[in-house]
Amino acid sequence: MKPLPGERIDELFQDGYRIFQHEAEFAFSLDAVLLAHFAYVRPDSTAIDLGTGTGVIPLLLASRGIAFVTGIELNRHLVDMAQRSVALNELTEKIRILAGDYRDMRALLPKIGAGSADLVIANPPYRPVGAGKQNSLHTVAAARHELTASLAEVVKAAAFWTKYRGRFAMVHLPERLTEIVTTMRQAGLEPKRIRMVHPLPDKPANLLLIEGVRGGKAGLTVLPPLIVHQPGGDYSAEVAAYYAKREVAP
Amino acid sequence: MKPLPGERIDELFQDGYRIFQHEAEFAFSLDAVLLAHFAYVRPDSTAIDLGTGTGVIPLLLASRGIAFVTGIELNRHLVDMAQRSVALNELTEKIRILAGDYRDMRALLPKIGAGSADLVIANPPYRPVGAGKQNSLHTVAAARHELTASLAEVVKAAAFWTKYRGRFAMVHLPERLTEIVTTMRQAGLEPKRIRMVHPLPDKPANLLLIEGVRGGKAGLTVLPPLIVHQPGGDYSAEVAAYYAKREVAP
Repeated sequence: MKPLPGERIDELFQDGYRIFQHEAEFAFSLDAVLLAHFAYVRPDSTAIDLGTGTGVIPLLLASRGIAFVTGIELNRHLVDMAQRSVALNELTEKIRILAGDYRDMRALLPKIGAGSADLVIANPPYRPVGAGKQNSLHTVAAARHELTASLAEVVKAAAFWTKYRGRFAMVHLPERLTEIVTTMRQAGLEPKRIRMVHPLPDKPANLLLIEGVRGGKAGLTVLPPLIVHQPGGDYSAEVAAYYAKREVAP
Repeated sequence: MKPLPGERIDELFQDGYRIFQHEAEFAFSLDAVLLAHFAYVRPDSTAIDLGTGTGVIPLLLASRGIAFVTGIELNRHLVDMAQRSVALNELTEKIRILAGDYRDMRALLPKIGAGSADLVIANPPYRPVGAGKQNSLHTVAAARHELTASLAEVVKAAAFWTKYRGRFAMVHLPERLTEIVTTMRQAGLEPKRIRMVHPLPDKPANLLLIEGVRGGKAGLTVLPPLIVHQPGGDYSAEVAAYYAKREVAP
């Protein structure tokens, strides 16, 4: 399989799965990689990725040995690229990419049962419309700003698809922490685990990893901080390991 | 001034203020020290400490150069000890200790104006009644369990006494983060700064330092993690500095 004009094939990690990316679309970032490793995955788990983009999170969850992942994506161009990446890695038995709007649960119900997922995962747009500069490419702007889904809509959809006692894992901005935990609790996804991501040990957090449990009891664990870089600039041992060569689940 | 039976005099830090403590009362802990250093203090600031105990936080804020602190304490024995510590350090111009229940704002109004404090600070009981084992000494139990004030009551009192745009600083448990930020936002004390305290870099947080601004806009900074111990067990450089010899403000 060859990349189409404007596309390239990137490695997700050394000798691991490969992924189509396009110069005019949002390229997957460290955020997705950290999220896919933060999420709790068991070999018999099924997951739904809300706004899967190029399908990076389903590929990483497959590499972690998950049973089955559905990625939902609104942008038809990204759906096409993600489906070709799934085929490129011969993962059509483990990953399906659905074209659709995850806020329209009714339309997706024939394909995904309500309360059916052990894990719902989301790397949603971080910034409210009107906050900060928007990218002039609409598809890139949609990945960064809440043009297509607000925080409340992401959490509402997650609560709808998550099994009772199942988990919702999300990466977001620390500056929106209060809104995030409030919205999750109101939707019945009780915040249970948080991990702050700091670029360096002496810098404020620039990302937040959070997990909620549907129907969970109050009580949160704040995990050890995830430090991305060593003082010299290289990745920390933990992050470097995410990009290093390793076994891909058969 | 000599300690009474059952009492001892401890140093707050090397060559710094001294404090009366009693074997049957809650002794001040690292929590209070971290909180007093986390709080934003300016030389012209006035502060109120809710549930001041032996007065450790007013003494530490005075050592940081604050203009004036009022400590409110329900337990008359602790009020007496705190007042003697203030006298011992010749700080009666800077610190006053009031006997009273900080939940009874009306009763305290003749002495403290509503919305008058630049800073309200609290190291409240951490655990709801019924959670965990209670100490058989009532005064120690009151410092640990919400026998005398719930989280909601602490935050309500803080909102009442804090000036518009003034700050509220509190130390609490990370496991109650969702409740803390929700309660603060509802009371009009918008969470603006959080610092997670980890005993070691690879351990979950066991304390949470949080600051809210009365009438503040949404938007939170998660500060660099505060690591208490070095892997060998000694205090980290940051915490060791809190106990080291230093200048006391004149």
